[in-house]
Formats: sequence, structure tokens, C-alpha cells
Amino acid sequence: MLFQVQIAIRIPQGVDKTEVEKLSAAEIEQVKQLQRDGRWLHIWRVAGKWANTSILDLQGPEELHQIISSLPLFPYMEVDVIPLSRHPAAL
Amino acid sequence: MLFQVQIAIRIPQGVDKTEVEKLSAAEIEQVKQLQRDGRWLHIWRVAGKWANTSILDLQGPEELHQIISSLPLFPYMEVDVIPLSRHPAAL
Amino acid sequence: MLFQVQIAIRIPQGVDKTEVEKLSAAEIEQVKQLQRDGRWLHIWRVAGKWANTSILDLQGPEELHQIISSLPLFPYMEVDVIPLSRHPAAL
Amino acid sequence: MLFQVQIAIRIPQGVDKTEVEKLSAAEIEQVKQLQRDGRWLHIWRVAGKWANTSILDLQGPEELHQIISSLPLFPYMEVDVIPLSRHPAAL
Amino acid sequence: MLFQVQIAIRIPQGVDKTEVEKLSAAEIEQVKQLQRDGRWLHIWRVAGKWANTSILDLQGPEELHQIISSLPLFPYMEVDVIPLSRHPAAL
Amino acid sequence: MLFQVQIAIRIPQGVDKTEVEKLSAAEIEQVKQLQRDGRWLHIWRVAGKWANTSILDLQGPEELHQIISSLPLFPYMEVDVIPLSRHPAAL
Amino acid sequence: MLFQVQIAIRIPQGVDKTEVEKLSAAEIEQVKQLQRDGRWLHIWRVAGKWANTSILDLQGPEELHQIISSLPLFPYMEVDVIPLSRHPAAL
Amino acid sequence: MLFQVQIAIRIPQGVDKTEVEKLSAAEIEQVKQLQRDGRWLHIWRVAGKWANTSILDLQGPEELHQIISSLPLFPYMEVDVIPLSRHPAAL
Amino acid sequence: MLFQVQIAIRIPQGVDKTEVEKLSAAEIEQVKQLQRDGRWLHIWRVAGKWANTSILDLQGPEELHQIISSLPLFPYMEVDVIPLSRHPAAL
Amino acid sequence: MLFQVQIAIRIPQGVDKTEVEKLSAAEIEQVKQLQRDGRWLHIWRVAGKWANTSILDLQGPEELHQIISSLPLFPYMEVDVIPLSRHPAAL
Repeated sequence: MLFQVQIAIRIPQGVDKTEVEKLSAAEIEQVKQLQRDGRWLHIWRVAGKWANTSILDLQGPEELHQIISSLPLFPYMEVDVIPLSRHPAAL
Repeated sequence: MLFQVQIAIRIPQGVDKTEVEKLSAAEIEQVKQLQRDGRWLHIWRVAGKWANTSILDLQGPEELHQIISSLPLFPYMEVDVIPLSRHPAAL
Repeated sequence: MLFQVQIAIRIPQGVDKTEVEKLSAAEIEQVKQLQRDGRWLHIWRVAGKWANTSILDLQGPEELHQIISSLPLFPYMEVDVIPLSRHPAAL
Repeated sequence: MLFQVQIAIRIPQGVDKTEVEKLSAAEIEQVKQLQRDGRWLHIWRVAGKWANTSILDLQGPEELHQIISSLPLFPYMEVDVIPLSRHPAAL
Repeated sequence: MLFQVQIAIRIPQGVDKTEVEKLSAAEIEQVKQLQRDGRWLHIWRVAGKWANTSILDLQGPEELHQIISSLPLFPYMEVDVIPLSRHPAAL
Repeated sequence: MLFQVQIAIRIPQGVDKTEVEKLSAAEIEQVKQLQRDGRWLHIWRVAGKWANTSILDLQGPEELHQIISSLPLFPYMEVDVIPLSRHPAAL
Repeated sequence: MLFQVQIAIRIPQGVDKTEVEKLSAAEIEQVKQLQRDGRWLHIWRVAGKWANTSILDLQGPEELHQIISSLPLFPYMEVDVIPLSRHPAAL
Repeated sequence: MLFQVQIAIRIPQGVDKTEVEKLSAAEIEQVKQLQRDGRWLHIWRVAGKWANTSILDLQGPEELHQIISSLPLFPYMEVDVIPLSRHPAAL
Repeated sequence: MLFQVQIAIRIPQGVDKTEVEKLSAAEIEQVKQLQRDGRWLHIWRVAGKWANTSILDLQGPEELHQIISSLPLFPYMEVDVIPLSRHPAAL
Repeated sequence: MLFQVQIAIRIPQGVDKTEVEKLSAAEIEQVKQLQRDGRWLHIWRVAGKWANTSILDLQGPEELHQIISSLPLFPYMEVDVIPLSRHPAAL
């Protein structure tokens, strides 16, 4: 089933920049692997912000929480989750 | 280029129900045609609401405005537009 | 899987009171049946408001949208949906 | 009587991680004990966030404040309290 | 136990003025009776608005909902309920 | 004349805990003295939060500002002030 | 004592235009008289909106409520009241 | 001097469509004339909404209010005004 | 021309108190001088907050920005600017 | 195609002032170069705030994100992006 996830990253003052870069790199790899697994369908950058719009295809809220809370930048994220269903206008 | 469009429908008291159904049916046809044209990539129902999340692939804001403002239910829509760019984690 | 659903009812001026009472009565019956089916686990009144907090146990967002959008008072509802997962402190 | 409590945790930059883990572990034990006592009826994780939805069955606002303000992570919590009453649609 | 109740009245266009005056008069009588019963401790007008701040001393959320939802102007109210407990600085 | 004052306390990371306790203790004494003086009529704890609802009976905004800004925890307060007048339903 | 009052006017659909003009004209006269009485010190138009910023010099919240709630357009007003005190930088 | 003006149009249910079209047409003519006069520098459509972003070059808030409040659709507008000054990065 | 300026001061944790007092004292002198120059017409304390309401009479947004951004506490200010025009009810 | 970009700068406590000045100077040079390139059409200071309103003429969201996220003060920015299209009233 599909979930839209809106993520914004806010790094507080005092976090080491090298650490942030390391977490970012690890996050990119993790999200790529989840795409290869067919669980993270889409990820787009919100233009002009450190934020993204994603569509995940998962077995439910348990898997969603496990995936999002395991992301390396999770402690610095604002997350909105919107469960999606089929739209009558979808082909 | 990609635009995320969040649409919520609010029908005010006093609008004729048959009219709303006619507009809805026309809107579904219009969105289907735009999907066939490769301009409206995705449309999902926000579960539990009269609202949807859509991704459009267009030539720019002009085409975006022309498409959204031509939708039959446009007078009753709240619309949010988010320009999207490629995310470094996208495969 | 579990979804928390927060519903507030706002009846606009001009809706017939007898109609509202009829819709309310039908809604109560529908929600009771969904409880008997084991799909609507809890419904509580938010004290002091025409609003409720509910917990539903469903197969996913499709079933959620089908159930909520079929409620007789759906046209007058503001709905928030929160997917729930297991908490490590739950017994 | 029932209270719905929405809790979100926000740990500011500079708090020691080991300390947070110790507080979290103590909090889990405390919430489990309150469940065994029949005072904390439900706790669910809000999927994708460090947040939870809880239902407590207490003698009133005094007991509510005593319990919530004694939680080890209370200094880092945003708390919303919603008093609940019986809904006419509840079985 | 104590509940703080913030009430704002919004009369939509189209409601008959004589009806509003009748409802207001009935509401005043009802609130006075609840004060005499020792259940509605304080009611103050929020200066400059059709709104009030009230303190009620009740047996719990059930009684609170029963009282507030029985007020003649309830259909036109925005209501916020805040459960109160004893403050350590209170004499 | 009466003023409703809603106060929430937010202690930023880095403030010494012993200092906060000292300020809190001093604040409690100050508020108690103002109650004995007949100027601070009521103070209630907002259940579940480090926040309070208070009613002060003062000579005007000058005295209000002097009292609130002299509270030991004032640098960490969010304050809302609502001037109150007599309600026609008050006994 | 001084109160800052921010007023915005919102006329709902269906109110007779001639009636609004009559109420507006009466309101202007009433506000002028209050200025002559030394009770309404300043009134400015918020540029670009049907809204105003006013400073009143009154005996307290009772007089404030009596004055604002007697304004002919009061049923269509959104009102914010801010009690003012002397600023240490004022000459 | 420059003012940024953000305008959104909301037509309430019950306003005659022909009337709206007439007001829209008159508004377009009025805005064009103000552009020819060098007072309305830019007007852009906010893509996907009945809203616009404008930059006006005026003698001050008096002229701003006179121009905006004379627009035929003013009764249905939400207006935000932002005074602009020269930016150090402007060529 | 007139501008209403609403200023709230928020000093983050870690700023030296003596420095804040020095900046405050300098700011008071600067605002007093601007009053003597006839450019800062009014300044009032928002009762109960570290905030003020001011009315400035300036040549336009350039002078406004120059004055506000030169205030010693500017780095710690939240500022709202509202251009004012003559109200038809003003004497 | 045109994008309106609203940028506010918020420097957290603890960032070195000389560093901020260096980043500001570099940002001004970068924005000037983008204006010479015909990509950054307008930049105005929001009077009274460390914020600006800008209009960019770009090939799409990719270029927008590349430009905004390369600005030296990007880590301290709040950014809002509004895609613009031609307005029927534009000359």
C-alpha cells in the first residue's frame, strides 16, 4: 500500500558538518537500496529547500515506521505521512 | 519538468449536487486524458478526504496554470503547487 | 493495521435540521456495524465538541477511504488520518 | 475517566545521547507499569515520527498531570490533552 | 474537577436575529442555573469579542460534554477545553 | 480589573537545572504573595503541561506588565494576556 | 489606560449593500464622537485592507467591551485587543 | 516607492457568475491602465491559483489603499502588503 | 507616511546578559532620539511581553529599513510592518 | 520561466559573526552575477526584516534548486517558491 512522505531536514547549530555529510551519504545509499527493493517508489527534491516528497509502497504503518526511523538523518527530520488510496481518475 | 500538486475540494452549501456530480465526472475524464497525453503522471486519493496528490510533467508554470484552472471543479479547489527537481538519492 | 481518525463535524447554515438528524442516526448505525465487524475498534466523543477520536483496524488506506467516504456526514467532516504502529512501551 | 494524550518528543542539540537512551528506557518501564495498573489503556506509535497517541483512564486532571509530568522525557515533550466522553455510536 | 472552557460564538449569515436573541437569553438562564448549582464556577466576557472564558467544576468529561452540548448556542460555538489541576503556587 | 494570563514555560537546552529550580521556587513565593495581596486571584496548572492559567485583578496594563515581567521565569515564558469584562450570565 | 485594537471587517455574502453602507456611515460617526470624547485616540486604515489599527484610552476592559460591541459593524468584525503599558523608551 | 501586493480571490457561493466576469474584465482594464501610468510595475499569476503577485511603484500607503480598494473584485480579495526597499545585492 | 511596526524580542540561550543590557540601553537612546527627530511617533510596551507596538512617520520603506535594521537588538527581533493610511473616521 | 522566491535569513546563536559577514558578502556577489546572467531578474529587501523577495527567470525547477542551494547563506534560509505564469492583466 502507498504512503506519501514529506520530509524536511533541519540541522541545528552545533552539529558537526563532516558528520552531517556522512549521514547524508549513508541516507542516500539506504534510500537507493529501498528503491531497488521496490519499497521506495519515488523520491523528488522539493526545489529550493532541503526537503523531499516520497512515495513508498509498503506492507503497512509498521514497515513505514521501521524504514523512516532507521534513516540516518531521522533525528533532524520533520516528517508528514499521508496514506494514499486509488483515485477514480487514475488510469 | 515536474510539479507536485495537492488539491482539496470544498463544495460550499447551496451548490446543486447533480451539478457537482456532472463536474466530477467531467474532471475525471479530463484528468484521464491528461494522463494519456503523458502530462499528468500520477494521481492518488488522500485516504479519508476529498483531496488528491498529483505529479504532473509539464513544460512550465504556464501549462500548469492552464491545466489546473481548466479543471471543472477548479472554483471549489484549494491548490498547493510544489516544483520538484531530481533528488540525489533517486535511482 | 491501525489508523487513528480525528473527525470534526461542521454543518453549514442552510442545511435542514431534520436531514442532519437523519444522517446522524444513519451514521451511528453504520459505525456500530463496523464495530461489530471488528473494523472500527474505538470511538470516543471529544468532550465539548461535535468531534470524535476513533481507532480503526483495517487492511489499508483503500479500506479506510471506502469506510470514511461512505459515512453519511462525510460532506460535513474535517478528517485527519494518522497511521499507527506498535509502540515499544505497549504491553 | 478517559483522556487522549498526544505526545511528540523533541530532543534539542546538546543533550547527551546516552542520557536520552537511559531516559527512554526508564520511560518505557514507567508506561508499562501504568498499563499493568490499568491507568494507561493504550499507547501507539505515530508512524514515521517520534510521537505517540495514548488513551489514559484516570481519576481526573490531577492524576493526569502527576503521571505525565513524572515521565522521564517530560522536559522534551510537546503534549496535547483531549478529555474524552462516551460517543453515542460506541457499542 | 476543574475544566477551563474557552467559547467563541460565530453566527453565520442567514440566521434569524430574533432566534439568536432567544437562544442567547435561554443560554444566560442556563448558565446562571449552573452557577447556582455550583457546577459553573466563573464566566467572564473576553473584552471586545463575542467570546467568554469559563471555569467549570464537574465530575468529569461526560458531564462537561452534556453541559456544553446542551447550551442553546452550541451549534454556533467554537469550544476549547483545558483540564486544570492544582498549581503548586496556589494558596 | 481582570486579566486572564496564559503562561507556558520553555527552558532552552543549556540552562542550569539548579538555577531553574531556584527560579521556580522564587516564582512560587512571589505568586503566593500576590495572591495574599488580592492581586493574583487564581492560578491553575494546565494538566499535562508546564503551563498555567491565571486570573489577576489589577489597576491596569501598567501593573500587569510590572508583575509579569518581574516573575523569575519571565525570560522563559510565552505569555498571552486577555482583558476580561463582566459577562451578562455571571451571577 | 491604553488598548490597541486591531479590527478587520468581513461582510458575508448575502448582506444587503445599502445596509452595510448605512452601518459604515453610523460607525464613522460613532468613532468620531469617541475621538472627540478623548476615548478613541487614534484610528488608522491598514493600507490595502478593510481593516484598521486603533488606540483607545479607557477606564478598563468593561468600557472597552461596551464601546467595541456597540459599533454598528461589530457582527462582522474580527477583533484583537492588546493592553498597552508605558515603554521605557517613550519620551 | 515599492510595495509587493499578494492578492487571492475567493468568490463566495451565491455571487452571480456574469457579475464576476464583468468585475474581472473591469479589473483587468483598471490594472492595465495603472501599468500604463507607471504605477503598477508587475503583475504575475500565481500558477494553479486564482491569485497574483504584484509590484507597485507608488507615492505611499495612501495611494496604495486608494488603488487596491478601488479594484472591482476588492470585496472578494485577501490582500497582503509588503513594503520593499533596495537590496544590497541589486545591480 | 505612517508605518505600524510590531516588534518582539527573543534572546536565545547563550547570549551574555550584560551584552543584552548594553544593547537594550543603546536601543532606548536610539529610539528616544528618533522620537525627538519626529520620525518615531509612538512606542508602547505590549503588557506582559518583551514586545512593543510603534508608529513611525517616515519618507518610505527605505528609511524604515534603515532605522529598524540599525536597532541594536535587531538580530533578536521578530518584526511585522503594516503600512497605514488615513481612516475615514479619523478626525 | 518565472519563479517568485521569498527568502528569510535566521542566524542561530553560536554562528561566528565574521563568518556570517563573509557568507553575506559572497552571497551578494553571487546574486549580482546571476542578475548579469539574466537569471535573477529582481531582488528587493523586505523592509524591516532580514528577508527578500526575488523573481528568477530560469529553465525550470532543476536550475532553481541548483541556484538557491548554492547560495552561501542557504543553511540559514527559510525559502518559499511560487511558480509564476502570465497574468491576463499584464501589458
